[in-house]
Amino acid sequence: MSSSYGENIRLTIFGQSHSRAVGMTLEGLPAGEPVNLDALQRFLQRRAPGQNAWSTARREEDRPEFVAGLRDGVTCGTPLTALIYNTDTRSKDYSALAHRPRPGHADYTAAVKYGGHQDFAGGGHFSDRLTAPLCVAGGICRQLLEREGITILSRIAQLGPVCDRGELLASTAEKDFPAVDEERGRDMRAVIAAAKAEGDSVGGIVECAVLGLPAGLGDPMFDGMENRIARIVFGIPAVKGLEFGAGFGLAALRGSESNDSFVLRGGRVETATNRCGGILGGITDGMPLTFRAAFKPTPSIAKEQRTVDLETGEEIALVVEGRHDPCIVPRAVPVVEAAAALAVYDAWLGRKKEVR
Amino acid sequence: MSSSYGENIRLTIFGQSHSRAVGMTLEGLPAGEPVNLDALQRFLQRRAPGQNAWSTARREEDRPEFVAGLRDGVTCGTPLTALIYNTDTRSKDYSALAHRPRPGHADYTAAVKYGGHQDFAGGGHFSDRLTAPLCVAGGICRQLLEREGITILSRIAQLGPVCDRGELLASTAEKDFPAVDEERGRDMRAVIAAAKAEGDSVGGIVECAVLGLPAGLGDPMFDGMENRIARIVFGIPAVKGLEFGAGFGLAALRGSESNDSFVLRGGRVETATNRCGGILGGITDGMPLTFRAAFKPTPSIAKEQRTVDLETGEEIALVVEGRHDPCIVPRAVPVVEAAAALAVYDAWLGRKKEVR
Amino acid sequence: MSSSYGENIRLTIFGQSHSRAVGMTLEGLPAGEPVNLDALQRFLQRRAPGQNAWSTARREEDRPEFVAGLRDGVTCGTPLTALIYNTDTRSKDYSALAHRPRPGHADYTAAVKYGGHQDFAGGGHFSDRLTAPLCVAGGICRQLLEREGITILSRIAQLGPVCDRGELLASTAEKDFPAVDEERGRDMRAVIAAAKAEGDSVGGIVECAVLGLPAGLGDPMFDGMENRIARIVFGIPAVKGLEFGAGFGLAALRGSESNDSFVLRGGRVETATNRCGGILGGITDGMPLTFRAAFKPTPSIAKEQRTVDLETGEEIALVVEGRHDPCIVPRAVPVVEAAAALAVYDAWLGRKKEVR
Amino acid sequence: MSSSYGENIRLTIFGQSHSRAVGMTLEGLPAGEPVNLDALQRFLQRRAPGQNAWSTARREEDRPEFVAGLRDGVTCGTPLTALIYNTDTRSKDYSALAHRPRPGHADYTAAVKYGGHQDFAGGGHFSDRLTAPLCVAGGICRQLLEREGITILSRIAQLGPVCDRGELLASTAEKDFPAVDEERGRDMRAVIAAAKAEGDSVGGIVECAVLGLPAGLGDPMFDGMENRIARIVFGIPAVKGLEFGAGFGLAALRGSESNDSFVLRGGRVETATNRCGGILGGITDGMPLTFRAAFKPTPSIAKEQRTVDLETGEEIALVVEGRHDPCIVPRAVPVVEAAAALAVYDAWLGRKKEVR
Repeated sequence: MSSSYGENIRLTIFGQSHSRAVGMTLEGLPAGEPVNLDALQRFLQRRAPGQNAWSTARREEDRPEFVAGLRDGVTCGTPLTALIYNTDTRSKDYSALAHRPRPGHADYTAAVKYGGHQDFAGGGHFSDRLTAPLCVAGGICRQLLEREGITILSRIAQLGPVCDRGELLASTAEKDFPAVDEERGRDMRAVIAAAKAEGDSVGGIVECAVLGLPAGLGDPMFDGMENRIARIVFGIPAVKGLEFGAGFGLAALRGSESNDSFVLRGGRVETATNRCGGILGGITDGMPLTFRAAFKPTPSIAKEQRTVDLETGEEIALVVEGRHDPCIVPRAVPVVEAAAALAVYDAWLGRKKEVR
Repeated sequence: MSSSYGENIRLTIFGQSHSRAVGMTLEGLPAGEPVNLDALQRFLQRRAPGQNAWSTARREEDRPEFVAGLRDGVTCGTPLTALIYNTDTRSKDYSALAHRPRPGHADYTAAVKYGGHQDFAGGGHFSDRLTAPLCVAGGICRQLLEREGITILSRIAQLGPVCDRGELLASTAEKDFPAVDEERGRDMRAVIAAAKAEGDSVGGIVECAVLGLPAGLGDPMFDGMENRIARIVFGIPAVKGLEFGAGFGLAALRGSESNDSFVLRGGRVETATNRCGGILGGITDGMPLTFRAAFKPTPSIAKEQRTVDLETGEEIALVVEGRHDPCIVPRAVPVVEAAAALAVYDAWLGRKKEVR
Repeated sequence: MSSSYGENIRLTIFGQSHSRAVGMTLEGLPAGEPVNLDALQRFLQRRAPGQNAWSTARREEDRPEFVAGLRDGVTCGTPLTALIYNTDTRSKDYSALAHRPRPGHADYTAAVKYGGHQDFAGGGHFSDRLTAPLCVAGGICRQLLEREGITILSRIAQLGPVCDRGELLASTAEKDFPAVDEERGRDMRAVIAAAKAEGDSVGGIVECAVLGLPAGLGDPMFDGMENRIARIVFGIPAVKGLEFGAGFGLAALRGSESNDSFVLRGGRVETATNRCGGILGGITDGMPLTFRAAFKPTPSIAKEQRTVDLETGEEIALVVEGRHDPCIVPRAVPVVEAAAALAVYDAWLGRKKEVR
Repeated sequence: MSSSYGENIRLTIFGQSHSRAVGMTLEGLPAGEPVNLDALQRFLQRRAPGQNAWSTARREEDRPEFVAGLRDGVTCGTPLTALIYNTDTRSKDYSALAHRPRPGHADYTAAVKYGGHQDFAGGGHFSDRLTAPLCVAGGICRQLLEREGITILSRIAQLGPVCDRGELLASTAEKDFPAVDEERGRDMRAVIAAAKAEGDSVGGIVECAVLGLPAGLGDPMFDGMENRIARIVFGIPAVKGLEFGAGFGLAALRGSESNDSFVLRGGRVETATNRCGGILGGITDGMPLTFRAAFKPTPSIAKEQRTVDLETGEEIALVVEGRHDPCIVPRAVPVVEAAAALAVYDAWLGRKKEVR
């Protein structure tokens, strides 16, 4: 099912941008795990809109109500369900768009697929709004991984033409802007501000690292860590590319340059370099698991665009109304972490079965 | 299960590099579809090793024996199983490597995961050899798609530092070398020859396009066309990156540049450009579906490398023996097509259920 | 995942007896299907407790709130989620039972499985309460099947020692008591009343028939109609047996007695008898699909029972407090219909893919 | 997929009665488990035809060839695939039956489902022949369970009108006929002989018990032990009923009679009786897991029957040629054990994930 993810846990996301609620069910969590709701709320806050100059003016509380799966704040072995009620919705913004698909959005493809029955308001099930329940689920898995000594970091590696500097060694969660280099972070903000001023938007790249993983997670072929992460990360709206370790850069290298030699460090087998992103044959090698996801610019822009009116069958000019992010990338940073947490925790739960 | 793929069809791949056979089972094919075994053999031949200067000297027949699922050469609605028996195997080449993991290979991660019980000979289940049954399955799906007017093309877009020129508009299957531009194809071959001469290897990028798709294939969120293709393409050994349409290049663009305007062409809704790679919200928009997969250089190189002896716990020098491809990319071209065919055909079978 | 069901649709049930809500998500419904909420409410009312002498005095509204998946009352192609908030819960009834497992209940097995973290109040996720969201999902599928001319009937075939008379040819939904024969229905009620008077409970058998099915639904081996129905019907609390057509009675017959001859009726292929329950090789043959499910007596009885105190490790006498059904079977009748509707509709959606 | 089973392991069965081979792939087995091929062969021999007066005269070797998944006879963590080549096939026996469906067989329903493309020879994928690979897979799981102290017993509880006497406390595998009571076993054989003499067939009931299970296996709702066993047991041809513990007999009891009291035996929590068949809420309670499966009589009988010629559209008389079992039940006994082994081992592998 397309709104579900996972093998050892299974996440199901429901809701539309303007339905009564968005939410998620997470099956397969072990019983006996406390969920720290305050820490979860802080995590969700990193994604929430309306907080600063570079995100949409919509304000969403993003405060999940847990209706099932907890007993006194501790998982009890049954499906965990949380809802976030939709409050600040303005459906009228969208009513005219039912048959005038916005370029870069799923309006047209959903109209074809669902024969006009799709919920077009606010992008329906395709809206970025659905990353809120993804963050609820991922935020919980992130806590459970932390208990195992596994941490997840991320940053904006590129925003428009500006690349971050330095390595991703510590969390950017507490920073004003999730770039490692302060100066580059300011440049990125300037890029967003410029795009916003012109009624335009801009894309970027989020880099993510999972630290503390043991060797041996993941599976051959179609359930390798790359496959698992890919299946969930491409489920984040606007992601159009994904690479692990040195990724596309590996294409230009020689094998003698790209192979990571095995070395001993403090009695532990490690690799001297980490061009494979901590994954060999789909399985973790004990080094940091690293990947980068490319986000296209927010398709909702204030500039006039061309589209086709599906009712009249004519090409028309379109100006998209509503309140939109000039750049989704800063808010996407915790979403990428949530996706990584779900993928890794799912693999983690599967680790116990493999050897007699 | 990690060696299985698909929702409406399910492919299961079995076998190790040096087991009695490799093979595959494909469940869920409609009954009544003839399989053209000659055309399939020609397709498999594009992947088979031992055919030219730039691939391994191993010769494999890659001639599948169908043991179930066909009646007089036509699918009969039951699981289709084909085997390719392993004949030209030299297990002695590998015996010393059980505890001396080759850099860039899955030897180390498999040893950890399976507690030393993995079949290390020839890379076991992680070997490129397993792409042969993938091509059997994908080659069949490719035939079934062609009956629906859907074709799949691919080429080497980059090999080492050399990029192909021109657009991918026609099949490169009949060419000596699968590049669009003849001159660049020669340059690529020179890159491979140089790497081989030095006992080294080289990586590259394969580009793939699926033509003739209707709008409306694929699903929201985790079963979008990107997710479906990613799950199978990252199952091809050595793939470390994947992008759709303009992919990573989108990160540097403005929304006004990256959005594909909708236009009318001959009464049909199309997009003026195709930076989204024919996919919006995970669903096809009727334009060519395009993606690019980055391959790391073949990890097996003749040069001396560093590794750790897992038994003695010492760092050692390692020279990998055996016959290996200096570049896997040319032989990977049909494998990428096969993967695309499986992903697309799986989505195609799901197309009928969505609207009352 | 254990709280999920289905292949072409997927139902996920969440909630505990005393959590904030119980509910369900149903993925995979085609877009464009109106849901008749009034008819659904009438269907749910057949399951609701507190309506007559033979059911528990607990009153539950069982009025679902739809939070996702509908647009103006019509399915829009995205997951459909409905909640039923729990209101009339008396958790104090159960607090003493955390370590004193009730015989016949899941208290003990859940305590072992979840290490004491289970939500024991009211039976938690194992409660009959969870059949309410099952009926929401099944009630919707029942409506969709009716649009295809497929109807589902059921009755109490046996209650305690009393067997119903006559054949199941019409719905018993509008009757005071769901037996075909009025007199036997009165006898059954007397059996319930007698059990109740003695602080005891009683079991029974529900028979179900699906009419109007085309031949060709269901699949070989593990997804036959029997397998599909079994997987969901054994998910109804208290079901301990299931048989199709003549079921266990077939064991005593000869092949010449049990085989259903094919005949022509009005130009249509039918069978002269229907001992196979409309299923051959797992696939419908176009005759009524019939099955019977055996329910054990409600394990909650007022009589003193023996159990073990898991804390003190001593055998003790136990009297179960709370308000319970002396017989769950009458309220289980629509639950069986709901389960059948889900299984059949899931198979129905899969019907389109099998032949070129 | 309909020919696949399992969650933590996944079995896929392929082949038709008269295809080149039948076989199976079993994914998800832990690495490092030796497979005792001699013991497996003895187990398969219990199912093999042609061994005595009451089974078909067809002789099948049923000697699996393992083509993948083992290294030196030990599982290596990758899919395990075994084939049994079909040798003694007489396809001519069946050619006339393509459009003259045999009563009680899947001929008609398969013809409708697959539009005439089904492999009708010998019943194709619906043949009892496919229980051979099921026994290969189940026989392996049975060995792995035995290593954990879990054993599986079975017997014929009823054959035609004759019921076995005594309790199922020890294996009947070494006996000439798998009944506990010698005299009743002789009576059963007489029933088979009489049916055979008349060109008829007879049904029966197989009882199975799984001993040594810990409490806590299985899951709520749709993955309870009943659901898991039902999904696989109804995949055995001719099974039309299934009950756990006292099963259908529970319908006539009072709760005070059917509830199993918890008691202490040697410091261990047990139940005084075992009417629930060792399963409460879908989860094992540590007592023997017991179930009974009802088999209809073999539909292939020598007597003349009535059917419809699908080509001419006329009712005709039909005499089924070929060599058939007058009673499948004796050979079904190990098949039921194999099915139970697969279901239980699958649940066993899932046991480790539930509690932090």
